Amino acid sequence: MAGCCAVLGAFLFEYDTPRIVLIRSRKVGLMNRTVQLLILAYVIGWVFVWEKGYQETDSVVSSVTAKAKGVTMTNTSKLGLRIWDVADYVIPAQEENSVFIMTNMIITMNQTQGLCPEIPDKTTVCETDANCTAGSAGTHSSGVATGRCVSFNGTLKTCEVAAWCPVENDTELPKPAFLKAAENFTLLIKNNIWYPKFNFSKRNILPNITTAYLKTCIYDAKTDPFCPIFRLGTIVESAGHSFQDMAIEGGIMGIQIKWDCNLDRAASLCLPRYSFRRLDTRDVDHNVSPGYNFRFAKYYSDPNGAERRTLIKAYGIRFDIIVFGKAGKFDIIPTMINIGSGLALLGVATVLCDVIVLYCMKKRYYYREKKYKYVEDYEQGLGNQMDQ
Amino acid sequence: MAGCCAVLGAFLFEYDTPRIVLIRSRKVGLMNRTVQLLILAYVIGWVFVWEKGYQETDSVVSSVTAKAKGVTMTNTSKLGLRIWDVADYVIPAQEENSVFIMTNMIITMNQTQGLCPEIPDKTTVCETDANCTAGSAGTHSSGVATGRCVSFNGTLKTCEVAAWCPVENDTELPKPAFLKAAENFTLLIKNNIWYPKFNFSKRNILPNITTAYLKTCIYDAKTDPFCPIFRLGTIVESAGHSFQDMAIEGGIMGIQIKWDCNLDRAASLCLPRYSFRRLDTRDVDHNVSPGYNFRFAKYYSDPNGAERRTLIKAYGIRFDIIVFGKAGKFDIIPTMINIGSGLALLGVATVLCDVIVLYCMKKRYYYREKKYKYVEDYEQGLGNQMDQ
Amino acid sequence: MAGCCAVLGAFLFEYDTPRIVLIRSRKVGLMNRTVQLLILAYVIGWVFVWEKGYQETDSVVSSVTAKAKGVTMTNTSKLGLRIWDVADYVIPAQEENSVFIMTNMIITMNQTQGLCPEIPDKTTVCETDANCTAGSAGTHSSGVATGRCVSFNGTLKTCEVAAWCPVENDTELPKPAFLKAAENFTLLIKNNIWYPKFNFSKRNILPNITTAYLKTCIYDAKTDPFCPIFRLGTIVESAGHSFQDMAIEGGIMGIQIKWDCNLDRAASLCLPRYSFRRLDTRDVDHNVSPGYNFRFAKYYSDPNGAERRTLIKAYGIRFDIIVFGKAGKFDIIPTMINIGSGLALLGVATVLCDVIVLYCMKKRYYYREKKYKYVEDYEQGLGNQMDQ
Repeated sequence: MAGCCAVLGAFLFEYDTPRIVLIRSRKVGLMNRTVQLLILAYVIGWVFVWEKGYQETDSVVSSVTAKAKGVTMTNTSKLGLRIWDVADYVIPAQEENSVFIMTNMIITMNQTQGLCPEIPDKTTVCETDANCTAGSAGTHSSGVATGRCVSFNGTLKTCEVAAWCPVENDTELPKPAFLKAAENFTLLIKNNIWYPKFNFSKRNILPNITTAYLKTCIYDAKTDPFCPIFRLGTIVESAGHSFQDMAIEGGIMGIQIKWDCNLDRAASLCLPRYSFRRLDTRDVDHNVSPGYNFRFAKYYSDPNGAERRTLIKAYGIRFDIIVFGKAGKFDIIPTMINIGSGLALLGVATVLCDVIVLYCMKKRYYYREKKYKYVEDYEQGLGNQMDQ
Repeated sequence: MAGCCAVLGAFLFEYDTPRIVLIRSRKVGLMNRTVQLLILAYVIGWVFVWEKGYQETDSVVSSVTAKAKGVTMTNTSKLGLRIWDVADYVIPAQEENSVFIMTNMIITMNQTQGLCPEIPDKTTVCETDANCTAGSAGTHSSGVATGRCVSFNGTLKTCEVAAWCPVENDTELPKPAFLKAAENFTLLIKNNIWYPKFNFSKRNILPNITTAYLKTCIYDAKTDPFCPIFRLGTIVESAGHSFQDMAIEGGIMGIQIKWDCNLDRAASLCLPRYSFRRLDTRDVDHNVSPGYNFRFAKYYSDPNGAERRTLIKAYGIRFDIIVFGKAGKFDIIPTMINIGSGLALLGVATVLCDVIVLYCMKKRYYYREKKYKYVEDYEQGLGNQMDQ
Repeated sequence: MAGCCAVLGAFLFEYDTPRIVLIRSRKVGLMNRTVQLLILAYVIGWVFVWEKGYQETDSVVSSVTAKAKGVTMTNTSKLGLRIWDVADYVIPAQEENSVFIMTNMIITMNQTQGLCPEIPDKTTVCETDANCTAGSAGTHSSGVATGRCVSFNGTLKTCEVAAWCPVENDTELPKPAFLKAAENFTLLIKNNIWYPKFNFSKRNILPNITTAYLKTCIYDAKTDPFCPIFRLGTIVESAGHSFQDMAIEGGIMGIQIKWDCNLDRAASLCLPRYSFRRLDTRDVDHNVSPGYNFRFAKYYSDPNGAERRTLIKAYGIRFDIIVFGKAGKFDIIPTMINIGSGLALLGVATVLCDVIVLYCMKKRYYYREKKYKYVEDYEQGLGNQMDQ
């Protein structure tokens, strides 16, 4: 018991610290201090000034709504004069972080359930009923084959299908795009962000934006960088593409909103930065399955109760709104951690200088003698210890 | 060759360890042990107990479906008695992580393609045809101007537009909200989560929830915290807002589901925590472009084949369901790494004590003499070495 | 001033390095080198070869579009022969990262606003008007009760409601699924990825895929792992479920696309890997509220102007497309950091060996004597210093 106390006492009142050789040499000393200075400069410059290592960071939480505006008139032989407004060309009417604007379309009106000949292509052209398999429905067919071969027009015969008739003929896409005027439509994007750790929230309609300004402004990277209303044509051109080209086959545009905020400074300096990117890369030399399109139908009911529909193959541009960013604010814990690892790096200076002093310098044997104490194994050589 | 072997042998059978000064002093020793104890307490307390540094963590992968229920009746001069159910007020019918409930609306019935006067405002009121530019279509216009100035009502004249006529008049928003009864509608949220690293999956309909309970329960933070059916009014009020206020102009609510799981404990303790937050911050003093609304149309076909539509400007609340969380489970690798960096921190104790002992204490010269061995540069001063 | 310069000079031209005991012992030396070798092997093997610690990494940014194809015919007493194509069974027509395919349905045709008896269940069956509360609308009711008790069929009486009449009867779900042929429908997934740090982008339609191949191919994990067209049945079966079972009540399937790219190697080796997982876990023993369904309606207008609708309770499979992955490329900064922390780990070898040498070996007292220099406190014991 008493022995135990003695051991505990010895342990408690003991302090161990490494023994140090302090070499007084102009060359070596200067080198050592230079290396330490470089490491210190790195720690302060890179970690603290550049990477803001003294800040705690948080990622953005965001909510987005987008609203298109614009109206245009088309004049075609099929539809006559027709006005297109938001309810006509935005499909579906609302989405979470995305808005689709129809720019081109293939419309097939007054389809009813019935029997009709397929659109002629390699697999559907036939000469006799033997060429058509009753009940078959391939991936690309418009309906279920009845097994009959019927006249498509005066010269061609194709397999008959049970389908919504007449079947859609999507071989010819309107050029230029049907709703080419969509270039001048606008998109109002409302974006609220929140940094949960700092309980800091802000919206992209900045406090200095008035209702009057919001009614007339249009985003421009130089003159109006904080106006949240974007002209569709400008978005596509900012990404380096042609709106009229993109409108024909459709595509996907990313609207990126970056909120990088230094919350050690005034909240009014935390501002959204907009950038635009085409998300469906378009290889000119590998143009397989380009663009973006989908089909939808409007259903009608005939006076006699039969169902009719208008099928629309809609080509258009989907605008995906992507919000990202980081906020930083001074915090004691990351500051301490970075100071700590900075100090640890200073130890590397000693290792580096040791290598130079002990292996590269002329006087290396003299310094080695000072730094090292050679101890032979007990049995091997008691006595031939080299010590100062 | 033999020399090479000798060097290799010397290298292999060598072991270098720093020489240590072991100072036996009550003051210094006690200080040293106290600092070490503090660091040890920090490592164990903060890193292991609080941050669970011995666990590997994984982020949640989740799938969400939401289903609204509720029915209400409205009685207006325009629509008469009308019943509204899910298929009427949820638009679109299904979304990925979100559900929109229409609470207010401006309905414009029986629109057809035609010519009609614009709604009067600053830019559309005219006196003669000269005030209207044919073919112009501003961002806020309902159609394309024909260039004529026509009578809007007995006293006012506005520019005529080719548009879906009659054009929508959205100047007056119903107050209180048209579907104010939506406050009592419910939302059933089904959420499956998966932690891929641990192959652990769970759903928010807990194993002890029966079909009978699910038919009658309503979420309540105190009495029914695990019922996945939420009353819309409760959601908005939990976030500190008034449902009836929000219903008028619409908005966005976040339903946050937090799954923080310690998989070292029983799986039944891994439970969802619900919280609610309004995502579109509403500054009372900066009320520019508030709320959330969009337009959609239902298309009809006249007996004579002409197209008609009912345009609805829908105001409502979009409920975004946000799932987040982390799971942790004991793993040897992070445990080792944290023990390692904990040990490294103990080295800081020595540095701290060195500073005090060698620079602040009275007996600093005595201790310095013991710790340091001064070596002068070979040329400068051979012989005047101060040792021990 | 002169003293200050002297201190500065002393500081600048000073170099301190720890004094080292170099023990020449076969046993200890070999152990030391073995431990160092193990740590070195760990650093090189795990950090550099396995974890690729010499690379900077970036997370994927992705855009997805999905397009279903396929057509089928149903024959029921209610609807007669009917063809179903994409515009009929994909609801809504487009979504951001997801596509819903209707596989089963309960259709209620020709609903109009009116009064009709509720579907009988526990709460709606009544005997007299006293059982029905006028104006009440429960969560599960189809409309607002009028307070009258009316005949549902010859034998049963239920409360009358103001609702879309006739009300939906969803007690019997078609088995097998109504659109069971959806098993053979296909999904074309177009996915563009982008690694912003490396400005590297790629699409899942690889450069060697031709238009002809894309017209005929179907994904198969073994024979066609890079064909972006998936048969719905194959997706569900790959996840270990039965399509026909899932089609009845619906569910959610995850299509995971993994892009793990080592950009130090050829870009053509950066390839998508597809995998499939059912996201709504289905406990056989806890089958509360299974599957996925929602209601939507198609609105019609009667010749006399009255509104009619067809209500559809759609059951089906929602395919969520989840894209993830990391790209790595050689970078000098992470390489330096990992080499640095690798060197730091080598220090652990010394600590480990110290423990063994000083506490476990027979000759521990001999070694301790060499390593430690015991210094008594100044007052306590001047003179009784034990050195070397």
